[in-house]
Amino acid sequence: MIHVKIPATSANVGSGFDSVGFALKLYNEIWVEEAPAGVLEIESLGGDKNVPKDENNLIYSTIADFFRNERKELPGLRIKQKDNIPFTRGLGSSAACIAGGLLIANELAGTNYTKKELAVMAARKEGHPDNTNPAIFGGVVSGAMTEGGMVYVKMSMPQNLIYAVMVPDYYVSTQKARAVLPKDVPLRDAVFNCQRAALLTASIATGRFDNLRVAVDDRLHQPYRKELIPGLYSIFDESYHKGALATFLSGAGPTIISLLEKKDMESFDKGMKLFFEHAYGNWKIDYIAPDNEGAQVL
Amino acid sequence: MIHVKIPATSANVGSGFDSVGFALKLYNEIWVEEAPAGVLEIESLGGDKNVPKDENNLIYSTIADFFRNERKELPGLRIKQKDNIPFTRGLGSSAACIAGGLLIANELAGTNYTKKELAVMAARKEGHPDNTNPAIFGGVVSGAMTEGGMVYVKMSMPQNLIYAVMVPDYYVSTQKARAVLPKDVPLRDAVFNCQRAALLTASIATGRFDNLRVAVDDRLHQPYRKELIPGLYSIFDESYHKGALATFLSGAGPTIISLLEKKDMESFDKGMKLFFEHAYGNWKIDYIAPDNEGAQVL
Repeated sequence: MIHVKIPATSANVGSGFDSVGFALKLYNEIWVEEAPAGVLEIESLGGDKNVPKDENNLIYSTIADFFRNERKELPGLRIKQKDNIPFTRGLGSSAACIAGGLLIANELAGTNYTKKELAVMAARKEGHPDNTNPAIFGGVVSGAMTEGGMVYVKMSMPQNLIYAVMVPDYYVSTQKARAVLPKDVPLRDAVFNCQRAALLTASIATGRFDNLRVAVDDRLHQPYRKELIPGLYSIFDESYHKGALATFLSGAGPTIISLLEKKDMESFDKGMKLFFEHAYGNWKIDYIAPDNEGAQVL
Repeated sequence: MIHVKIPATSANVGSGFDSVGFALKLYNEIWVEEAPAGVLEIESLGGDKNVPKDENNLIYSTIADFFRNERKELPGLRIKQKDNIPFTRGLGSSAACIAGGLLIANELAGTNYTKKELAVMAARKEGHPDNTNPAIFGGVVSGAMTEGGMVYVKMSMPQNLIYAVMVPDYYVSTQKARAVLPKDVPLRDAVFNCQRAALLTASIATGRFDNLRVAVDDRLHQPYRKELIPGLYSIFDESYHKGALATFLSGAGPTIISLLEKKDMESFDKGMKLFFEHAYGNWKIDYIAPDNEGAQVL
């Protein structure tokens, strides 16, 4: 029996569009047992009916692709998955399935790939490393794909900080969130984001969290996505009034995340709940600590 | 007598276009003495005839602006300047005059502004903080201007590294180097640079200098400027063959800077000199250590 857990992740971090992501202490768990060839049993412990129980299951297909690439024979599999990370909310649920599938496949096949090697495979399968990197490494990860692989820096987050994860009661498809982005952007907006993306990781690496409000400011994706998320910038503003160090869309949204000092959690919670009672519908707020470990075989 | 020294600086650092700059151990020095009102004497110790000796002198005009903004009466001034930083080569000679002028004015007027406050004034006078920040703070500085001021992170450079400063025997005007840039750029190029700008500062802050070759890669300015600097990318390639950790245009060029480990200096020098003998004209190579102190009142 192989047992892995993989953290939820958030990509983009404002200015770090398609560049920076981080991990949260909210985990999917997967248990896998070998079975006679041809067997495929998938059980969803949360009982979610949307989890595919056949070859389309993302954990299974990740394992199967891995064995195909290794030219090894895939055994039969009994998979149990517990999905604590909600689907399609910008919290890296698919990256968790891919990262988990790769960790399991690496164990099953006895291939001993490093986390970095698995992270390259994960990024290729997902199409980008923004969620798969923090899912595998934990912390905050700044990475860039190259022809030959991937280059990255992992930074750890201090435990006196916490993420306020604000989730509305509606969906925004990633497809739609991509479609509102322009093909070209003004050079000055590109420079604006580069300045802040550089400042973002420099500030995290050196513990200057007081810089983050400026550093997460973004002109490349959030301004275009605000029409999909009513009140986006009002919510940002309110979060800063209530003590947030940084606030941004998680992935393509609609989830919004604020980074806070733990000591400000109560007043933030009270203030934001009052705000949401009067505007912009039903938002649920969860407080989740930073994960610095990443995916683990237990 | 007030005596200050100010380091040369390089801005842009590839992906960190208009975002990141650093300081080098090559200094301009300025000596200023109060004189009876109305007196203005300017002496250039290098004897450079291009240094304006009147109100158009950049050190003088910086001091005069400072006094005007402070609503204080400007005394007469005797200025001696020693300009070791070459003009119009992308090494921050004007930023050094502005930074130096502000440090002197702060002493003359007894205003006790902090370096950060002076850096905001310097950035406003120069129009951007890319050179003025490292000129004042030293090290590598990632900064962004805000409506209210400026947010920055300073990182120090280890002393086992050295900059190879490669200067050709021709000029490229900043105006021309700006004119070749497009007004709009593909979003994917903007994202490419954001990824690398974030990786650049994360790598410097965490000492991952092995990442820098990927991290300095740029699609926002150098590809457009290559026509102004014959052989730009061949020189980049050759520098990497000869051991460079990172190579990029300094400012708007034509100066090219490689970051090296000191131990690789000799073989780099030999290899690059041989290369320049056969292609792309006369390039002079100077080796200059990183400055981590910034502008100083001596």
